[in-house]
Amino acid sequence: MSIWCDEVFEEKIRFGLSIKQTLFVGHSEFQKVSVVDTEAFGRALLIDDLWMTSEYDEKLYHEMIVHPALCTAPRIARVLVIGGGDGGTVREVLRYPEVEHVDMVEIDAMVIEASKQFLPSIGTAWNDPRLKVHVADGLAWVAREDLPKYDVILVDGSDPVGPATGLFNEDFYRNCAARLSEQGVLVTQAESPLLHREVHLDMIRTIGRAVGHAHPYYGPVVLYPSGAWSWIYASSCVAPKDIIDTRLAYIEEDCFIYNRELHLGCFAQPNHIRKALRRS
Amino acid sequence: MSIWCDEVFEEKIRFGLSIKQTLFVGHSEFQKVSVVDTEAFGRALLIDDLWMTSEYDEKLYHEMIVHPALCTAPRIARVLVIGGGDGGTVREVLRYPEVEHVDMVEIDAMVIEASKQFLPSIGTAWNDPRLKVHVADGLAWVAREDLPKYDVILVDGSDPVGPATGLFNEDFYRNCAARLSEQGVLVTQAESPLLHREVHLDMIRTIGRAVGHAHPYYGPVVLYPSGAWSWIYASSCVAPKDIIDTRLAYIEEDCFIYNRELHLGCFAQPNHIRKALRRS
Repeated sequence: MSIWCDEVFEEKIRFGLSIKQTLFVGHSEFQKVSVVDTEAFGRALLIDDLWMTSEYDEKLYHEMIVHPALCTAPRIARVLVIGGGDGGTVREVLRYPEVEHVDMVEIDAMVIEASKQFLPSIGTAWNDPRLKVHVADGLAWVAREDLPKYDVILVDGSDPVGPATGLFNEDFYRNCAARLSEQGVLVTQAESPLLHREVHLDMIRTIGRAVGHAHPYYGPVVLYPSGAWSWIYASSCVAPKDIIDTRLAYIEEDCFIYNRELHLGCFAQPNHIRKALRRS
Repeated sequence: MSIWCDEVFEEKIRFGLSIKQTLFVGHSEFQKVSVVDTEAFGRALLIDDLWMTSEYDEKLYHEMIVHPALCTAPRIARVLVIGGGDGGTVREVLRYPEVEHVDMVEIDAMVIEASKQFLPSIGTAWNDPRLKVHVADGLAWVAREDLPKYDVILVDGSDPVGPATGLFNEDFYRNCAARLSEQGVLVTQAESPLLHREVHLDMIRTIGRAVGHAHPYYGPVVLYPSGAWSWIYASSCVAPKDIIDTRLAYIEEDCFIYNRELHLGCFAQPNHIRKALRRS
């Protein structure tokens, strides 16, 4: 008999992994945090019983939230990561020697601590001296006017429920835009273009208004609802396909999925999305 | 309480849909065939308890197995579909006025009958006079030397277990190649590049040897293991990105996901696949 750990979507769809053991369950002031050891995907993190990341498929997500921005933004010296408590996003960011300073702003210390203890293969850059981890509210952080600008902002939050809800509002993106340097780039995860289609479309429109231009891009993430996932690349002036060759050459060989062709291909919009955006 | 219908992958991963009712269960001489009505995805077909297609996501699969070939092959007058008993593939093929004759060779009459009765929204072209349905073994069909050549062959089979096993052998693809017209194109579904990675890589190499050139391409299919799916485009001489504009213009507007950008983007190989193919 297998012991199953399932994410259930609206009582209609479930995605389950059989587990060897539960490594951690805790309740922070924000949410339930769990780490399980699965038969198929190694160790995996859940928040409020939703799959967040696993050792097996984490690069599908982390490479895609990081490299399209980091391979195109004219400057990448100062980077802000909002969320990302498992450490995978900052790990990918810190692969670039041109990155000088990363502020990671995660609201829930328990996510960071559980990830450090139980998912060390994902967060391999915690000790990088360029990284400053702040346990703080990302909404308040981007409202601060006392900070130097960021060249890249990556929003690695969870779904628009619980503490991440504010990460889906126009005020938040306007504040992000105000924190970006002149040729800065913002990327956020943007939900499933199928199961969260209206949220996804709203995000594209909202971020386009707040930042200037918003380009959705697409790729698979096995753990997430529908398996089809998306991100949004936003900038006032940087074109998302203008790859800086030297940076790409430096990181491409050691990527699991990311490479030049995938970067250029992932911005293709499924026809139903393209048509909906033309109408709006 | 929900009643769940799950596909279980190696006792380690399951993907389940809550069901309103079971519409059909039958045992043919080849396999178990079921149709269920699901809360999330409308009606869905299972073979041997594996999800085959659903009303909700079927276009993700059927548009991708058909249009890359049909928008690039120099001639598309004669088309062979092997498998495809739900009718979705031939429906997409028959959208092109230039298609004059389609042979659909499905081994299991029960799949066709159950689909006709319970999935009429998927198989909308059964009565097209250009379509000839043959209940026969695809392996034997492509070994026949008495048939006119085909401009396009689409292999819409299930996984390499049960009656579809032979659809993954080099002899089969060599026979397909022999049945193709001079500038013919073959496309086959090619499993998950993640969960069936070695099968996927073997198929690319095998089909490349048998047909000439094999180009994998990628897209999401919600119902299938990992959600990340693949197909292979094979030809002795046709380049998979040389789109014939008039054909694309004719079908694009009414596609759910397929369009020019998706066609050009879907051939991007994830880096781990590209590296494995370079080594082989």
